[in-house]
Amino acid sequence: MDFLPDLATSTPLWLALTTVGVNAVVGSLRASTDDERHWDIVGLSTFGVLMGLGGGFIRDLLVGNLPVESLRTPWYLTTVLGAILVVLVFGRHLARVSILVTTLNALALGLFAISGVAYALRADLPVMSAMFVGVVSAVGGGVLVSVMKDEVPAILLTSAPNALVALLVSGVYVATDVWDSRVAGLAGIVTAVIAHFVAHALGLRTRRADSPAALLFTRDKRDD
Amino acid sequence: MDFLPDLATSTPLWLALTTVGVNAVVGSLRASTDDERHWDIVGLSTFGVLMGLGGGFIRDLLVGNLPVESLRTPWYLTTVLGAILVVLVFGRHLARVSILVTTLNALALGLFAISGVAYALRADLPVMSAMFVGVVSAVGGGVLVSVMKDEVPAILLTSAPNALVALLVSGVYVATDVWDSRVAGLAGIVTAVIAHFVAHALGLRTRRADSPAALLFTRDKRDD
Amino acid sequence: MDFLPDLATSTPLWLALTTVGVNAVVGSLRASTDDERHWDIVGLSTFGVLMGLGGGFIRDLLVGNLPVESLRTPWYLTTVLGAILVVLVFGRHLARVSILVTTLNALALGLFAISGVAYALRADLPVMSAMFVGVVSAVGGGVLVSVMKDEVPAILLTSAPNALVALLVSGVYVATDVWDSRVAGLAGIVTAVIAHFVAHALGLRTRRADSPAALLFTRDKRDD
Repeated sequence: MDFLPDLATSTPLWLALTTVGVNAVVGSLRASTDDERHWDIVGLSTFGVLMGLGGGFIRDLLVGNLPVESLRTPWYLTTVLGAILVVLVFGRHLARVSILVTTLNALALGLFAISGVAYALRADLPVMSAMFVGVVSAVGGGVLVSVMKDEVPAILLTSAPNALVALLVSGVYVATDVWDSRVAGLAGIVTAVIAHFVAHALGLRTRRADSPAALLFTRDKRDD
Repeated sequence: MDFLPDLATSTPLWLALTTVGVNAVVGSLRASTDDERHWDIVGLSTFGVLMGLGGGFIRDLLVGNLPVESLRTPWYLTTVLGAILVVLVFGRHLARVSILVTTLNALALGLFAISGVAYALRADLPVMSAMFVGVVSAVGGGVLVSVMKDEVPAILLTSAPNALVALLVSGVYVATDVWDSRVAGLAGIVTAVIAHFVAHALGLRTRRADSPAALLFTRDKRDD
Repeated sequence: MDFLPDLATSTPLWLALTTVGVNAVVGSLRASTDDERHWDIVGLSTFGVLMGLGGGFIRDLLVGNLPVESLRTPWYLTTVLGAILVVLVFGRHLARVSILVTTLNALALGLFAISGVAYALRADLPVMSAMFVGVVSAVGGGVLVSVMKDEVPAILLTSAPNALVALLVSGVYVATDVWDSRVAGLAGIVTAVIAHFVAHALGLRTRRADSPAALLFTRDKRDD
């Protein structure tokens, strides 16, 4: 399997930057498409930075990989800047290419999750901790944006099961990594995209956590 | 005093896990007993993790003890997982054994405070900084849960004086540690439990901070 | 230019403590002058600590400068304690000397920004990352206080352009630092004070970020 790149530990730069850029666009849109509050350029940029780089910040802090990796080269911040400009210029029009954004989003979730797992394993953390870091890397950026917006992070309420997809991806990565880390990276990404679309197609939503049934899903055709 | 374990720096694992587990239960209950919002399994787990491990995360980050200590073995996350399952299965019934939960909570506050102080001292921080880290370790987890819930952390408003109990515990630990670190650990824990029950019995509450009188307490028999 | 101190990397202690103290006063006032909620001594102290030291905490975490610098000596916490006492005793009267507070605030913004840039450069981060760390150091403390208050940070909404002043200061520092780091420190501080007063005098406010025009300002004479 030597022809495959090791996606988790040496993600090709173009792929890493694409996912950061897509996430930054999604983050910045949470400012420019908000009709309730008047976010300024600082708010929009903050959401872009946190959504694009925040998960990685949390990963690097927990694991002790400092200075945080995305600040060690100018490419990540440059990409985020580009994403911010794209949102300023095209704004709401971007929301219309939602199928593309959804796919890239699933890809980003997967990449963030597997890089979180891989970095944690490299720091000699046990498998369970690595899966935890993977999930936190994948969903941490969105949570930070919600905190800045003074909102409850959507993933903590009954919602589409994004955090559970990240957990599944982390599990698949960990299981496959025992055999071959290159295949593990690919398996993780493929799992992310498939799980995302299956969850979407079936309208899976998490349940209210007031009984053990919270471990199951409900189905809701109006799921976004 | 050699027969005493050094509670702050080498807390017996069963004791550390018990306090983490109790705190995780308390955190998870903040999701499952909330009638206003529909927290899902991700929200409930997040509250359990942050309440059980969040104070330690903050301590390790401020002190530079990375990767964060509770991720270096699988035991802490396993304990939190167990706590989450307990809350899912028994839910509101747990709130009824409140005298037990209150005692364990006071114990947990004390243990988190003294471990915060001890880790800071070990990192060669001065006494004042160590007490700061102690207080932050003790109350940080609850503050993080409140931030996730989009609520003001209760300890910042007029309330039961938990943060001040943590400060007292840190002070007692620091003062006794000059003489013997084993006794210091025990003195800190005992202080935590006594101060907690005295504050509760007298109905002590902090005052509004608009004058120097804010350094005193009021008494309120309806104190929760 | 050898007679100038290197403000960013070896800020004279009296100057560093003055800016931390001023910021801590401003933070604590956000508790004691709040008529909506009853913040207690813990809340007031938390705001003072976060406003005075929070930006530095974030800087040190991102850059990996651990344990965080302001905890390595007792002077910073002692200064914050002093600021808290001043606010408790003098309270609302302090808000009246607003011209002094405004000037010291501008100075503090500048000092935090240049120390952020300098620490990042010393950690071998590229220029763009250093400017990012500079801005985050300058505005991070206020953002953390807003999160604790369960409010949207004002700088993320249409408001006085404080974050952009911090960006300008960081840019001036980086540009001048190529030539001489001592002059860079002074240039950064002078830029901060001038930009702050120009923005105030002209009533500059940021715009809503829904088009590229968000990169410009509006003018509003009622700007606070």
